[in-house]
Amino acid sequence: MKITDRKAEIINVAAKLFKEKGYSAVTMRDIAQAMDIKAASLYNHIKSKQEILVLIIIEIAEEFTSVIDEILASSDSTIQKIERVIQLHIDITLRNSDALACLNNDWMHLTDDDLIYFIKMRNDYEESFRQIIKTGIANGEIKNLNIEVIIFSTLSTLRTLYLWYGKKKTIKPEVLKANMIQVLLNGIV
Amino acid sequence: MKITDRKAEIINVAAKLFKEKGYSAVTMRDIAQAMDIKAASLYNHIKSKQEILVLIIIEIAEEFTSVIDEILASSDSTIQKIERVIQLHIDITLRNSDALACLNNDWMHLTDDDLIYFIKMRNDYEESFRQIIKTGIANGEIKNLNIEVIIFSTLSTLRTLYLWYGKKKTIKPEVLKANMIQVLLNGIV
Repeated sequence: MKITDRKAEIINVAAKLFKEKGYSAVTMRDIAQAMDIKAASLYNHIKSKQEILVLIIIEIAEEFTSVIDEILASSDSTIQKIERVIQLHIDITLRNSDALACLNNDWMHLTDDDLIYFIKMRNDYEESFRQIIKTGIANGEIKNLNIEVIIFSTLSTLRTLYLWYGKKKTIKPEVLKANMIQVLLNGIV
Repeated sequence: MKITDRKAEIINVAAKLFKEKGYSAVTMRDIAQAMDIKAASLYNHIKSKQEILVLIIIEIAEEFTSVIDEILASSDSTIQKIERVIQLHIDITLRNSDALACLNNDWMHLTDDDLIYFIKMRNDYEESFRQIIKTGIANGEIKNLNIEVIIFSTLSTLRTLYLWYGKKKTIKPEVLKANMIQVLLNGIV
């Protein structure tokens, strides 16, 4: 997807509004107002609120997909791969927590092909993560625990990081990363 | 809170509807219809949709509060205490996942004193959990990692369990508990 500066600005402003009020409650007029432009000029750049939602969610989902594909295909150890997945979630959380909130809260407002495409990416992401863990269990790098419990507890933490980290900016990203790796991989005991 | 059978039925039916459609979209008429009674007879048992929301959320929040208070005050080791917290979340998830969904999605629709009371219970719960972890770090039972990262990653998993476990009923509760304790306490490596 190629995005102009003006479009990028619209996306950022809209993501923030969607996060604050929920997708359904936000109008194109609200977005124009927040950008201090006329609603009519907003339509020069973007067709509809739906198009904005697609741009926000699909872009971020494609980033998750392409990075995990690369991690999965790499020759790294399982531990290194999981560390890279943790890094990926921290990076996107730091860079774009409004878009992550939008992805988590509003993905169900996508329609037709966009919805199908998103759900496919989401399922493929989990499947790639499952493959990483499976390989790790098979080669003895990961404990032989219930794989679904491992996947759920790791991804539930990484996927909700944006909710929590916004309020805890006192923790430096490097400290967050190091501690997250410790807690998720080696446990707290 | 003392709850009659009829009231309990209303609460269960409403929690299911709130989970499916969201609190705002559900009417008293919908609840009556789902129970196959007239809206007028619904009002013999309950004043308003708001009252139902309060009954659902406050009851479950009070259960979390009273159990964690008991755990915190007990003479158990830190490990045992955390195991009991995990057990508490699994128990409530198994028994009442609709109410948990309602608590997580709709608590912000509580008003006035109910909202204040709920937020206080939620903060106190986190504070009790923080005390358990703090004591564990002080006496060497828990690794000296960033305490906020430990609290976030443990509670984010336990609090979203209801979202995931509904679809994974193939895992037996004992297996879930044993694996959850392993993953959260000892890690996956």
